[in-house]
Amino acid sequence: MNFLNEVSSLFPSAVSLASGRPNDRFLARLKPQVLLNSLAVYERHSAGGHGGGQVWSQLLQYGRTAGVISELVAQQVRSDERVPARADGVLITAGCQEALALCVPALCPEPSDVLLVCNPTYIGAIGAANVARVPITALCNSAPSIADAIEFAVPQLRRNGRRARAIYLIPDFDNPTGRVLDTAARRDILQVCARHRIVVLEDNPYGLFRYEGDAVPPMAALDEVGSVIYLSTFSKTLSPALRVGAAILPETIFGDARASRALWEDLVQRKSFVTLNTSQITQAIVAGLLIEQGISLRAWVQPALDWYHANRDAMLCQLDSVFSNFPDQIRWNRPSGGFFLSFDLPFKFGAESVSECARRDDVIVMPTSFFALDNSQDCRIRLAFSAVTPEQIRTSVTGLGRYVARRLGRELPNLRDELAEAEDEE
Amino acid sequence: MNFLNEVSSLFPSAVSLASGRPNDRFLARLKPQVLLNSLAVYERHSAGGHGGGQVWSQLLQYGRTAGVISELVAQQVRSDERVPARADGVLITAGCQEALALCVPALCPEPSDVLLVCNPTYIGAIGAANVARVPITALCNSAPSIADAIEFAVPQLRRNGRRARAIYLIPDFDNPTGRVLDTAARRDILQVCARHRIVVLEDNPYGLFRYEGDAVPPMAALDEVGSVIYLSTFSKTLSPALRVGAAILPETIFGDARASRALWEDLVQRKSFVTLNTSQITQAIVAGLLIEQGISLRAWVQPALDWYHANRDAMLCQLDSVFSNFPDQIRWNRPSGGFFLSFDLPFKFGAESVSECARRDDVIVMPTSFFALDNSQDCRIRLAFSAVTPEQIRTSVTGLGRYVARRLGRELPNLRDELAEAEDEE
Repeated sequence: MNFLNEVSSLFPSAVSLASGRPNDRFLARLKPQVLLNSLAVYERHSAGGHGGGQVWSQLLQYGRTAGVISELVAQQVRSDERVPARADGVLITAGCQEALALCVPALCPEPSDVLLVCNPTYIGAIGAANVARVPITALCNSAPSIADAIEFAVPQLRRNGRRARAIYLIPDFDNPTGRVLDTAARRDILQVCARHRIVVLEDNPYGLFRYEGDAVPPMAALDEVGSVIYLSTFSKTLSPALRVGAAILPETIFGDARASRALWEDLVQRKSFVTLNTSQITQAIVAGLLIEQGISLRAWVQPALDWYHANRDAMLCQLDSVFSNFPDQIRWNRPSGGFFLSFDLPFKFGAESVSECARRDDVIVMPTSFFALDNSQDCRIRLAFSAVTPEQIRTSVTGLGRYVARRLGRELPNLRDELAEAEDEE
Repeated sequence: MNFLNEVSSLFPSAVSLASGRPNDRFLARLKPQVLLNSLAVYERHSAGGHGGGQVWSQLLQYGRTAGVISELVAQQVRSDERVPARADGVLITAGCQEALALCVPALCPEPSDVLLVCNPTYIGAIGAANVARVPITALCNSAPSIADAIEFAVPQLRRNGRRARAIYLIPDFDNPTGRVLDTAARRDILQVCARHRIVVLEDNPYGLFRYEGDAVPPMAALDEVGSVIYLSTFSKTLSPALRVGAAILPETIFGDARASRALWEDLVQRKSFVTLNTSQITQAIVAGLLIEQGISLRAWVQPALDWYHANRDAMLCQLDSVFSNFPDQIRWNRPSGGFFLSFDLPFKFGAESVSECARRDDVIVMPTSFFALDNSQDCRIRLAFSAVTPEQIRTSVTGLGRYVARRLGRELPNLRDELAEAEDEE
């Protein structure tokens, strides 16, 4: 990501469609006074019979490794995401990244153990495995489905003396592709994983941001045998600066309650040697906000949801308008939620393209190859619509059109008009 | 530590000399309103020309992996601890534990690389190495000095195809022993480490808590070639619940500026895959407090320092009184600072002894064997005087005396009186 920061600072007037951050305007609701109020709410909630002062001084101390807000987080995840979470299976982590950094090596303790990932996938999952020296195997994209790809990978790994122990997935509004897995696909994956004893790490940062259609149940809700660890985070709903996330364990691991308990204890011990415990101050802020919101973040995220929805519409609309006369190899998906869509090009788009696009066309985009384990994603980019305004989306997609037209050696008449119009609006 | 928590909950009336926590009464100064004020101070400080709102909404976002308060932390460490810190060598971490969890594997990337530790040593250092699968070698306690023990270990490791790459040390008021290394010992270690290219991880959580005598310069201040990474934390000075610490890199690693830069980049990348970045809310609280305190925590810790000093005196006084007529094998050190002292017994003191001592004698102590890599520490305990009151120290040391007398099959006449006296006071 350093490269993209560099490009941003070299071309400060370029609009970034590369950043999948939550929008500043919704984070800004967490004013200092709101944080203070949340702390007070948590203090009153926890005090029960005792004085609040004791709660507060306990909060400022070293605390329980697994966290102090597991019950509230379990309730919120049950209510908002339909995940059957129990408080004693909720490990509070320093953001979801720490949950990944703990779970991947715990699930893959042997040198022959392998983490399966989609290709492309979230960079943080690859990084967590790399830091823990856990080998990664990318699922084959030519298989008809992820379940098929797993079936294909398992014996191949076995022939090489390796064993798939876990798979990392973002079933809802995947980063970077925006893809949603339907219920049948999720069930197929669960079935294959149960057969091969592969634990699913289900990461769901974007689940509350669905713009249309019915929600698909999370894999953790479909899981009947105990094969899913659900990863939750407050970074997209409340604020990334809280650094509060969670790993939520099933009651059994493949029917074995003791195995789940042993995994829990392993994760807690690992956490105690990585960050000791998650900041109890930020945990208390999250707890206070959850209590204030009736243990559901649906109402809290609604304004952001509306905004992201409008942004997605604006992006799809502008893509339709700018790229209508382009060749068929230029295409993009229409994700029903999340922060991203995936855009295919008839040429390679790498780091140099990013710079040129930023310099000449005032738009920064993310090559999907940055998320890939081979060169299969070289002609694809990720467009994020979360952190920008509809106006910025219009000008930047127009800029992207200009760049693509130039690369293809053609000029589209309507592009000039689009650009002029967009500039008039500013 | 689970075992000790269990003992505490089984015997709630027992005084714990096992916990090396900072004292609640000094943490409690960080009232919610004080945190809010710190955030406001940081906001004003950072705003400069712009409005504070922008600073705040940036704070609530994803942020710089290495942290946003490096300059302030560098200043504080320079001023309070005489460490030649530069802002661009300061990596802000989720507590000092994360600094350890990042540095140990970064310094020991090869399977043949080894971390050297004293025996006993801080459990978190052993755990960080274990989680990262970095082998540990305990320095030999029969060598005349740590420098000699390193000289002895290096060729021995080499014969086994291994290489010492780093050493973990708490030179000031060691946990668990309370030991301070004098300037000559520090220089000797630095010389040996430079010769063998061993990086020193200098952990200094207790450095500001010296009760008498002149401060010994930290090894990072004595380091002339670039062999010391200094680990700092705000857990003992401000609050453990902030989870803010730092790894401070030297300008060169053994004279090589590029090596230090490469190590920095490796650490930043590892951090991005472990916790992404440290909570910017808690960073801002630390920054605001530092600014309010004139970028020195000396005045802030003074009341705590006085309290711990009085507690140490109370503990030494009570030990002198209770154990004056005991055999010579019972002895303890008189640390000039920190939270702990080390107490030698003429018999083994393990988990069962902890339980019996708690049940019958109302005192919980920490076996030093819990910090050890062999059985050399089986007859030693750590007594912590930070989290208790002088009254609790008197009754609990008396309880310890009663336990020891029973184990030795003798009864000391003055013990009864001590106990009665202590009970009268309550």
